[in-house]
Amino acid sequence: MITLTVDLDIRSYPIFIGSGLLDKTHLLREAITGSSAFIVTNETVAPLYLQTVQALLTGIRHEAVCLPDGEAYKTIETLDIIYTALLKGHYDRSTTLIALGGGVIGDMTGFVAATYQRGVNFVQIPTTLLAQVDSSVGGKTGVNHPLGKNMIGAFHQPRAVIIDTQTLDTLPDRELSAGIAEIIKYGLINDAPFFKWLEEHMDALLDRDSDSLAYAIEQSCRNKAHIVAADEKESGFRAILNLGHTFGHAIETGVGYGTWLHGEAVACGMYMAASMSANMGWLEQSALNRIRMLLHRARLPTTPPTALTPDRFRSLMSVDKKVIDGHMRLVLLRGIGQAEIVTDFDPDALERVLHNKVVA
Amino acid sequence: MITLTVDLDIRSYPIFIGSGLLDKTHLLREAITGSSAFIVTNETVAPLYLQTVQALLTGIRHEAVCLPDGEAYKTIETLDIIYTALLKGHYDRSTTLIALGGGVIGDMTGFVAATYQRGVNFVQIPTTLLAQVDSSVGGKTGVNHPLGKNMIGAFHQPRAVIIDTQTLDTLPDRELSAGIAEIIKYGLINDAPFFKWLEEHMDALLDRDSDSLAYAIEQSCRNKAHIVAADEKESGFRAILNLGHTFGHAIETGVGYGTWLHGEAVACGMYMAASMSANMGWLEQSALNRIRMLLHRARLPTTPPTALTPDRFRSLMSVDKKVIDGHMRLVLLRGIGQAEIVTDFDPDALERVLHNKVVA
Repeated sequence: MITLTVDLDIRSYPIFIGSGLLDKTHLLREAITGSSAFIVTNETVAPLYLQTVQALLTGIRHEAVCLPDGEAYKTIETLDIIYTALLKGHYDRSTTLIALGGGVIGDMTGFVAATYQRGVNFVQIPTTLLAQVDSSVGGKTGVNHPLGKNMIGAFHQPRAVIIDTQTLDTLPDRELSAGIAEIIKYGLINDAPFFKWLEEHMDALLDRDSDSLAYAIEQSCRNKAHIVAADEKESGFRAILNLGHTFGHAIETGVGYGTWLHGEAVACGMYMAASMSANMGWLEQSALNRIRMLLHRARLPTTPPTALTPDRFRSLMSVDKKVIDGHMRLVLLRGIGQAEIVTDFDPDALERVLHNKVVA
Repeated sequence: MITLTVDLDIRSYPIFIGSGLLDKTHLLREAITGSSAFIVTNETVAPLYLQTVQALLTGIRHEAVCLPDGEAYKTIETLDIIYTALLKGHYDRSTTLIALGGGVIGDMTGFVAATYQRGVNFVQIPTTLLAQVDSSVGGKTGVNHPLGKNMIGAFHQPRAVIIDTQTLDTLPDRELSAGIAEIIKYGLINDAPFFKWLEEHMDALLDRDSDSLAYAIEQSCRNKAHIVAADEKESGFRAILNLGHTFGHAIETGVGYGTWLHGEAVACGMYMAASMSANMGWLEQSALNRIRMLLHRARLPTTPPTALTPDRFRSLMSVDKKVIDGHMRLVLLRGIGQAEIVTDFDPDALERVLHNKVVA
């Protein structure tokens, strides 16, 4: 087992990574401070792992709520199901919530933890690759609004993140690829050696080689923990993690939540950001080719949905949270491992990407 | 004009108290950091003060949303009206929200500020006495749930509180009395001289004597700012401000939000807490009489609604946020100006109060 720490003073917490961690009672029990716990999961994950987690809670008052599966349910309405179950069960401020599932479950459970009775503790047990390498770490919580992705939310750090790599055995191939998109992101942002490692080990990752997956998860969490510790509430530097996300959120909102997986939209968004960087003369053609090749090997899309017109794309991008005082901020690439946050980009380079005239 | 400060390090903020402050542009402008603002108000307050506040925002992009009036609308559904208006207007993270109205408007605007795009700034412009002396100060924000009052919320401090005492000229008598309930609370908690002052000036307050009102507001805000600075997130001492609130919230939820005003429910709850304290031998009969007399002079109720059976009352109290790990916490009185947070109270003393067998 590997233990990383997200270093945030009194809000610091451990990330445990290993195989079979859902059998280790003490990891979860040490993160529970009160005498009750409440599990939030979904109909896909519950049959696989709910009993295992419940067995860890012997002697603690607990129950579980099971939600429908998918990004389409990451809404205010679904939050109310959780609030109501907590209140009906008389769970008080000392309760610890447990998010058992992927990014949607983690984001919603974290937001309920941030807002139920003005804040309770929670623990992340991510069961998808995307949640393990990205959304379970860093304290971003929230839900979507029909007009924009993740528009309602709060920063609320978990007490612990427990990553059992065995849960990936049951993950569908499409979700595995979606998680790999966020892993590739860390290489693109500031870790060129990791990008190279991914080029060398992509086949092993797709074959679910356990050592390769464990290393990719560890390296991703290490990168993320480092960036979050430097800028918890995204006053500046943390925004670098949004590479591909302004494009990606526009795709997700534009085609309807759940049609594209988040990781798929981010993959396409990263390639659009890379293409725009190439259009501006920032990124060499050879680097752009390597990025496209790696995304394709990971079975990820690089072409935006044809249904989204440039006008609609631009309008969706303009409501993203990365817009400050009317100025859109984008994360672009000077090279592989050299991302930069930019506000004074060339609008023509953006237009060419929106019109699908990407350098390819 | 009087300026008090809520001392919370980097989250410190001023409370301005005076007559005609809505004509002073700089107070509001200095609290707005970005280039846009968004006013949240209701159908009662808008015709009276919305134009005045809009005039302060010349040169700043702004608009307003007008909500229905009343505690019955302090719901998740109403929040969505605000979120949608913000998104439709493309208001970004640098926007400042302005709460123009009473406690319901302040609580909901604050919660939207805490959660829109994971947090934006906001300013409180309270127009009811209750909001001026209590809810606008201290950063408690949120909405009700059908199963419990204020069950969904967050701590989020405003950038400034602007209290124009002239707005009280248009306040209905019943709302004036509801505000006086929270003023009396500060006397009961830890300010016996202020309680005595209130006994001497109750007629002046009811006559809306401006000097008396200004002094009562100042003294209340001073007390509240002091307690909030000592314990922002209610890990302990701040709970003392909940005197009368566990009883009061049960009344509000039990009879339906909006039937009793919050201040009326708190007045009755304070008298129930005082009666329970007398039942336990903590509070002298003469002090209990003074409390009842002052509440009655302020035209406030001291008898709970007959529709609430003791069983229902007990059940409603048990979901209140003051319950920790199954133990109910109550604020009781050792004397006027001597409140105490108690968990090991005499259950029989509570039962006698719930059965209306109050010493009276």
